[in-house]
Amino acid sequence: MIFSINQDILLDTINIIQRGLPVKTPLPILNGIKLEVFEDHLIFTASNTDVGIQMVVRDPSLEVLAPGKTVIPGKYLIDITRRLEGRVEMSLIENKILLIRADRIEYKLHVMNVEDYPDVDFLENGDPIKFNSRILKSIIRETNYATSQFEKRPILTGVNFKYENSKLYCVATDSYRLSQKILELGNEIEPFNIVIPNRSLDELSKILDGSGEEVEFYIAPNKVLFKMTNILFQTRLLDGVYPDTMRIIPTEFPIAIKFNKDELLRSVERVSLLSPRERETQYNIIKLSVKKDFSIEITSTNTEVGDAHEVIIPTDDVVGPPIKIAFSSRYLTEALRAFSSSEVVLNFAGEIKPFVIKGDLDPDMLHLILPVRID
Amino acid sequence: MIFSINQDILLDTINIIQRGLPVKTPLPILNGIKLEVFEDHLIFTASNTDVGIQMVVRDPSLEVLAPGKTVIPGKYLIDITRRLEGRVEMSLIENKILLIRADRIEYKLHVMNVEDYPDVDFLENGDPIKFNSRILKSIIRETNYATSQFEKRPILTGVNFKYENSKLYCVATDSYRLSQKILELGNEIEPFNIVIPNRSLDELSKILDGSGEEVEFYIAPNKVLFKMTNILFQTRLLDGVYPDTMRIIPTEFPIAIKFNKDELLRSVERVSLLSPRERETQYNIIKLSVKKDFSIEITSTNTEVGDAHEVIIPTDDVVGPPIKIAFSSRYLTEALRAFSSSEVVLNFAGEIKPFVIKGDLDPDMLHLILPVRID
Repeated sequence: MIFSINQDILLDTINIIQRGLPVKTPLPILNGIKLEVFEDHLIFTASNTDVGIQMVVRDPSLEVLAPGKTVIPGKYLIDITRRLEGRVEMSLIENKILLIRADRIEYKLHVMNVEDYPDVDFLENGDPIKFNSRILKSIIRETNYATSQFEKRPILTGVNFKYENSKLYCVATDSYRLSQKILELGNEIEPFNIVIPNRSLDELSKILDGSGEEVEFYIAPNKVLFKMTNILFQTRLLDGVYPDTMRIIPTEFPIAIKFNKDELLRSVERVSLLSPRERETQYNIIKLSVKKDFSIEITSTNTEVGDAHEVIIPTDDVVGPPIKIAFSSRYLTEALRAFSSSEVVLNFAGEIKPFVIKGDLDPDMLHLILPVRID
Repeated sequence: MIFSINQDILLDTINIIQRGLPVKTPLPILNGIKLEVFEDHLIFTASNTDVGIQMVVRDPSLEVLAPGKTVIPGKYLIDITRRLEGRVEMSLIENKILLIRADRIEYKLHVMNVEDYPDVDFLENGDPIKFNSRILKSIIRETNYATSQFEKRPILTGVNFKYENSKLYCVATDSYRLSQKILELGNEIEPFNIVIPNRSLDELSKILDGSGEEVEFYIAPNKVLFKMTNILFQTRLLDGVYPDTMRIIPTEFPIAIKFNKDELLRSVERVSLLSPRERETQYNIIKLSVKKDFSIEITSTNTEVGDAHEVIIPTDDVVGPPIKIAFSSRYLTEALRAFSSSEVVLNFAGEIKPFVIKGDLDPDMLHLILPVRID
């Protein structure tokens, strides 16, 4: 195996492929990146228990003198590639040493046995669903934050993607708040109902370039494959039945208040600085009140530290009865940050009922937050 | 106590004063920032076991309605001030609650008892030494990195400032490497020999603005005071006798090699990527060799991972015998980063003798590194 390539191409590739390396693994070979050199292209593979990533590199700067394959310790390959400049040459010596040369530096790196690397099946099953990468990236941004970070109910640590009646429902909840996005899909495809782990979606989101390229989405019984131009990204699915969340979303909202999103965000952040932390979930609790004169204020109280109080001005007239509702300020700030709209509407169904946030520019998305009881 | 002031002035002040807050303290009152309001100025004070900082604020935006004093929980005052906008009004209610108002927000913050705050004496003793703040900042940058991080020999956790025969000697060493800067001082002052804790110098360095303002330096038996235009910064001194380091600096150097500093730095970083870590100090060991043909290379060997090898080109002719010397790459990179010179000279006295690094633009500064024995 002998080839050379420009450092920037190699670095771009390794920056993506390293997202498939395990944080910790009982299988040391997975700490390596598998490299296969063909006559006119390279294939890099990395995998762990959650995801597998494969990248094909075809570049004018690639010159292959001898094909071959090996597994290179991932951490060192990343560290080295970052610090090289110009043209990089790699040659494998007796399947044991990888000679890496660039400018006046030369590394002799011990490699791993390529026969020990487990097979990673990247299955392209049936007809794919096609996505614009930008839309996929925004679905992840809009839903993934609301998944549970705790393993108590494992199914809630992923985002539910359910397709039925030409509609794709993307839902995440940690049972205290919920995010839901609905998309019309043109394709005529079989219904499906899967849950993708939140960590896999985080990694996928970092790989999606948002340039709007087409992503193909293949579903197998226990995994899904995302196929981009030169990247395959596969992840395992979560086992189990995702709860039916539709029934907890209120449909009648006696009070709706429109706000400038950034102003509301800053107010909530300011008021929650002093607010006490709920013992169980460690989130700051604040109160929002609509007075009889339709002025609106948010407050927080901390018997040890002090109180905060801010009047906020809605961007439209308020209609409906007075209300006083308490909730986690963190849930609200995270939901607001998931919007691209500059104006949002808070829809209240009652003081102890979940409230719903919708955006002007995001008609197919809603965020729901459960209030806490006020003493 | 009632006053108002612009948020940016308040924030600039608190960003500096907070460097005097303790990380951890058995004396809870020290977690507060003492604020004294006078008719035309404010005084902020913070202190811990190492340092005390006091700032005077006189600003056209300051409007005092009633003088007074209090102690405000530091953490909350910082968090709140960062998020306010425009004009900030503070009023003390019954010495218990600080009312902070800006725009539409209002905080009621519980304050601490000002009588409990310990006296911090900022003693201006005798005639000061005068420093340009830029020079003081560069002395700290050039020496402080070489102090010991371990408490085994407490005296080495500070920088020695010794004045005798019109010269100021600034020395730091952790007994494996050393940094020394010598300055001619015009002032006619009494000789002194003090050791300032490295953490205090770190904080002082962040406060010095480098604009070139004059800093006055007052020495008391167990502390020093740095007096800037509107800031007093006082730190305790380390007890004990600083070792005489002059005798370990070689005076004869059979080999001297000149390098471009940045090129040498990058080479050393590249080569040390694979190098093993010395068990005791955890620093990467690399070898530098001057061959008979005057070519120079740096190498590292790691039996488990692999080897690295780079040829480096000096910027001038090399004279002297061949040499092979091993040392910690981290010591060399940290020393190189302390230079403002773009060219540096490595002066070797022998394979097991300390070597000395000097810079073209820094004639009064030297860095010394002890080699390790090669097996």
